[in-house]
Amino acid sequence: MIEDTSSVPGYTILREEAGDPTPCPSRDLGQPHPLDQLSVEEIRLAARLIRENSSFNDFKFNCITLREPKKTEYAAFRSRNGPRPSRQAFAIIIEKGTGKVAEVIVNLTNGNVESHQLRPGAGPIMNIEDMDVCERIARQDPLVIEACREIGITDMSKIFIEAWAIDVDERWGKDRRIQRGLVFYRKSAMDNQFSHPLDFSVVIDLETEEVLAVDIRRVNGGERTKPELTEHNFLPEFIADGYQHARLKPVDITQPQGVSFQMRGNEIAWAALKMHIGFNYREGIVLSDVSVHDPYENRQRSLFNRISVVEMVVPYGNPDPPHHQKHPFDVGEYGMGLMTNSLQLGCDCKGVIHYLDAIMAVSSGDPAIVKNAICIHEEDNGLLYKHTDYRDGSVISARDRKLIISHFITAGNYDYGFYHTFSLDGTYKLEVKLTGILNTYCLHPLETAAPYGTEVAPFINAHNHQHIFSLRVDPEIDGTKNSVVQNDAVLSDQPLGSAGNLHGNGFLCKKTTLRTSMEGGANYSHQTGRTWDIINPNSRRGGKLAGYKIVNNSCPPLLAQPGSLVHKRAAFAHKNLWVVPYRDYELFPAGDYVCRSTGETGHPFNQTIEDWVNRNESIDNTDIVCYIQFGLTHFPRAEDFPIMPVEPVSVIMRASNFFEKNPALWVPPSAICVDTVSRHAYKVEKEPLQSCCLGSSTSSKL
Amino acid sequence: MIEDTSSVPGYTILREEAGDPTPCPSRDLGQPHPLDQLSVEEIRLAARLIRENSSFNDFKFNCITLREPKKTEYAAFRSRNGPRPSRQAFAIIIEKGTGKVAEVIVNLTNGNVESHQLRPGAGPIMNIEDMDVCERIARQDPLVIEACREIGITDMSKIFIEAWAIDVDERWGKDRRIQRGLVFYRKSAMDNQFSHPLDFSVVIDLETEEVLAVDIRRVNGGERTKPELTEHNFLPEFIADGYQHARLKPVDITQPQGVSFQMRGNEIAWAALKMHIGFNYREGIVLSDVSVHDPYENRQRSLFNRISVVEMVVPYGNPDPPHHQKHPFDVGEYGMGLMTNSLQLGCDCKGVIHYLDAIMAVSSGDPAIVKNAICIHEEDNGLLYKHTDYRDGSVISARDRKLIISHFITAGNYDYGFYHTFSLDGTYKLEVKLTGILNTYCLHPLETAAPYGTEVAPFINAHNHQHIFSLRVDPEIDGTKNSVVQNDAVLSDQPLGSAGNLHGNGFLCKKTTLRTSMEGGANYSHQTGRTWDIINPNSRRGGKLAGYKIVNNSCPPLLAQPGSLVHKRAAFAHKNLWVVPYRDYELFPAGDYVCRSTGETGHPFNQTIEDWVNRNESIDNTDIVCYIQFGLTHFPRAEDFPIMPVEPVSVIMRASNFFEKNPALWVPPSAICVDTVSRHAYKVEKEPLQSCCLGSSTSSKL
Repeated sequence: MIEDTSSVPGYTILREEAGDPTPCPSRDLGQPHPLDQLSVEEIRLAARLIRENSSFNDFKFNCITLREPKKTEYAAFRSRNGPRPSRQAFAIIIEKGTGKVAEVIVNLTNGNVESHQLRPGAGPIMNIEDMDVCERIARQDPLVIEACREIGITDMSKIFIEAWAIDVDERWGKDRRIQRGLVFYRKSAMDNQFSHPLDFSVVIDLETEEVLAVDIRRVNGGERTKPELTEHNFLPEFIADGYQHARLKPVDITQPQGVSFQMRGNEIAWAALKMHIGFNYREGIVLSDVSVHDPYENRQRSLFNRISVVEMVVPYGNPDPPHHQKHPFDVGEYGMGLMTNSLQLGCDCKGVIHYLDAIMAVSSGDPAIVKNAICIHEEDNGLLYKHTDYRDGSVISARDRKLIISHFITAGNYDYGFYHTFSLDGTYKLEVKLTGILNTYCLHPLETAAPYGTEVAPFINAHNHQHIFSLRVDPEIDGTKNSVVQNDAVLSDQPLGSAGNLHGNGFLCKKTTLRTSMEGGANYSHQTGRTWDIINPNSRRGGKLAGYKIVNNSCPPLLAQPGSLVHKRAAFAHKNLWVVPYRDYELFPAGDYVCRSTGETGHPFNQTIEDWVNRNESIDNTDIVCYIQFGLTHFPRAEDFPIMPVEPVSVIMRASNFFEKNPALWVPPSAICVDTVSRHAYKVEKEPLQSCCLGSSTSSKL
Repeated sequence: MIEDTSSVPGYTILREEAGDPTPCPSRDLGQPHPLDQLSVEEIRLAARLIRENSSFNDFKFNCITLREPKKTEYAAFRSRNGPRPSRQAFAIIIEKGTGKVAEVIVNLTNGNVESHQLRPGAGPIMNIEDMDVCERIARQDPLVIEACREIGITDMSKIFIEAWAIDVDERWGKDRRIQRGLVFYRKSAMDNQFSHPLDFSVVIDLETEEVLAVDIRRVNGGERTKPELTEHNFLPEFIADGYQHARLKPVDITQPQGVSFQMRGNEIAWAALKMHIGFNYREGIVLSDVSVHDPYENRQRSLFNRISVVEMVVPYGNPDPPHHQKHPFDVGEYGMGLMTNSLQLGCDCKGVIHYLDAIMAVSSGDPAIVKNAICIHEEDNGLLYKHTDYRDGSVISARDRKLIISHFITAGNYDYGFYHTFSLDGTYKLEVKLTGILNTYCLHPLETAAPYGTEVAPFINAHNHQHIFSLRVDPEIDGTKNSVVQNDAVLSDQPLGSAGNLHGNGFLCKKTTLRTSMEGGANYSHQTGRTWDIINPNSRRGGKLAGYKIVNNSCPPLLAQPGSLVHKRAAFAHKNLWVVPYRDYELFPAGDYVCRSTGETGHPFNQTIEDWVNRNESIDNTDIVCYIQFGLTHFPRAEDFPIMPVEPVSVIMRASNFFEKNPALWVPPSAICVDTVSRHAYKVEKEPLQSCCLGSSTSSKL
């Protein structure tokens, strides 16, 4: 085996030599869990079977990934009512020269190629190897060299080109895999190139590796914009005056007894929860089979069949070309797994971390490992509950704890952390932390950044943009058959002064069951504080239906004109919630092939959420899937430059009459004191409150 | 001196004996800071001066508190352009027997009584001593005893009565200080009485100490509702099966070198920030004189003159009597300072805590200390920023830190933590953590809890309610003259296909300066993701106005009919933002006297935000004050019973073009690695990332 870490930073590519059996680093159990990522050997086997059976002459692999078993098949296995599902691989291959695309499904258990289907016109993901093409070829292109020379730049090694997928461009139709490269300049090895955006961009064909166009923006009758050479850096050597905040003393977070979770392969058990952690090149982390032990009913109850981030779009609001083409779909065009950071240097979490590796395929079909791609850790979560009896000062409180399963991606200039978080009160939260560097463009002295951007530093324009994420939740609230009830806080319809609302203070929660996938497309309403309960209409406790409540109020509307390209392509972002019936392998709301998609409905193999909604099937008391859209609108501030402080955005699902009572009652209190005169006194020693006696006055604990 | 801790739990009352000078526990500097709470001696001096000078025969003190200096006076002193302001006390006194109310202002520096004004009909706060009256007298009342006996309860020591201020009641007009007591039953010393709500309530006059009415709810032609006797407890002795989560291993948070802030009296310096921490019986924590050291301009810049929570209301949505009267104003009717917890047992924070005591007066005029009322501590705040260069894997990241100044109050059944939080990216956040116990009522078998409540346990009805808080921010963004600009994210008004918006992707931030206090009443708009920038129109950096952005999207509308009592009394809750010109001693948006207020405008001494807005003065480029309303609507869940997991709600203000660039650049990175081949390599050792090398694969750090 040859370990090759040169071609893609963060990837350890395991190239096979004859007679060189590589041990699988992630699988030390006999059989893989049916939802485990493909192992190194499985990827190799899949690549070999595809090579032996494909009708394509010479091709590259766009992906080789697990084809998850069908839901019923997996459910039967899980409940010991069916056989172990066969292991299957799903691959997309691209014929060299012709650019033809095919999907291949391989059964790894019996070695059969199950299907090999041509996908004419499909636009597969642009992977990390594809990303490099643009910079490599453009640096050598005479027109690019000339464009640079004209503004005084001659050292092409200082030119950096950020490739964006823009597969839809009127000049070259939809038949090519094309990229637009935005051009930046680095003054020195350590310099931040986003401080020096240049005034031209390139369009390349990444299959033929040719530069199709060099688009130079000329202002004021033909003028070029001079490169802005002021440095705006964030690396320590540029922070000349040192660190003002260096006087901050350490806050140490340690777990001397280790973590509180148990791993069995990729399955995790923590507190009352159990789930499987998967990963793939496109979605990144996939949580499956999430269930909770109900302390009151003393049984394991299912919560979610599958949770993952299945799409996101970052539309930019500057209408001038080429910026109208900037609306990356980071899941469907680039792949969240492919862009995931290797946390080999340590992630940004404190305490004891458990890492899982990601295993993906590169275009040669060789497996590549991203070491420490998934971070699993716990955090103290502050107060869980507290009450003081004002009569006698008796007090009880307990501390909350979080389990966080996260990965971090770098999408060109931007960086995103995805934190799947569970806490002891029965809440799931997906928190996304946005950081990294703003996409910048140069500003000519005759221009102003407003209204479509902010001049974050002299002559540096950062454009308005949005980030809209789509979280796919396949719920299984206490079983497969679920419904969604929309909750609206409304005034009583009985007027002030009437018998039923004499004093006019009546208000209530109006509940509307969403019956069909058309009704299942819904928006947040601030006026009514709208939430949605995913309920199981067949599971009642004291008249209340078992549910989990979706709380999603960070969900801006998509700011693009209806009829515009991004509005059509990002149809998933038209609503904050979609609910559709479950179907196997329907995952991606902007289509399986987002590149080159113009968002049309009725495509033979590239359907989107619009198609699924248009079927208008029942979503009531059946197996359903929810797509939850959330995000933010970002008008850049000076403070976001040159590197952006984390901006968090999140969505939560919390138990809503799922449990008989507060599930956190089963957490030992951290502090308790009952008045010794009027009540009994007793002592709790488990997880005592720490270090709280160091204040200015004496403290004691009963 | 006699230390008396018996009468009010958490209060240490310092009763004076002749010739017994008590050292002040909180002041060890020569002169108090002009914004410091009154000291023990100052309260005593004020009480003595008032006793010697009041025209009232026999009276009790409702409050004795600091009268803060006028803004100009304090500003002159602070900038060394004026003398030290005199120390003044403000007191409200109530004549015994007559119930007459007067406000007295005493100059403690020269011993003069500055004013003594009668306030006819004023409803002063109900303090903790007042709270006890209801339970004490009702337990002995023959009608109450009979009401209990009728439903089988004879041991009156098991009856607990929660007193609510309901100073407006049609049967007794507005001349009396009255309370409604909601009645509960405790089966044993340790039992949770909110599991056993009874079907009657009492109305008492707390000055004459008489029971005015015993209101029994009769159902179905006169039936009483049987007490529900099932226990729902949260104390450990009731958790019979032990703690399932006890297997959680500790997460230790320690600060071996101590805290990173410096205290000088009640002034704090932390990172780049400085401020003064005050406290009073009504608002609790008051932050004043908040300023920041700008690392780029190397000067101290003012941010906020004063920040405090000045009102809150908790309207309940059940229209049946007596619940229509439940809409407590916890600041104006009860006092957030008065209800504050003594954290002598240790608060719920980890690491090293610095406490400050609260000093207030009890009705005798004696000072009372709430030990450890204010908790000051730091927390790790996760990632501050991060970026990975995808080309070579170079990575930099830094950790954020929070300074949190908090107190916790118990308002009968509910408990609230108020966390004033500052982080290194220049953000202020007020986070309120809601916990404690739901207010409950009994349910007769013929009734359903819906639609106005939830049957959280059999026959226990928890009513729909809201919590709306008012955060008063007196901004001083880079100086006194500020304006507020409303930001709305909107589509370009140029249609798709037009020259200025050819592809239809244009969107922008529409900016509207609020010019007058009428315009200054504004609501959040979800559709446009509305925010507000408090700006200084006289402070520009590169064309951008220095500002702080108010982000407030957790702000439900007040759910009560216009014209209803709560709608009138809680006029402050009609808008999410009010901006009015600054005037000395205008603080409380629901009035200085919230008890007995019916919300009328034009009251001679009890004006509200409506009056201030109606003056319709300029709020543009002048000294302004913002009232920010936020909160939540709570439809109880089974999981909120018997004790409620913390529900957080928050509002933030973040730097918006206030700094030239990211203020967090001055924080040392926690991890940095630059590729050794294409770039230089170097090492940062400050605050190294901890414990991140314990995962399943090897990690290293350059």
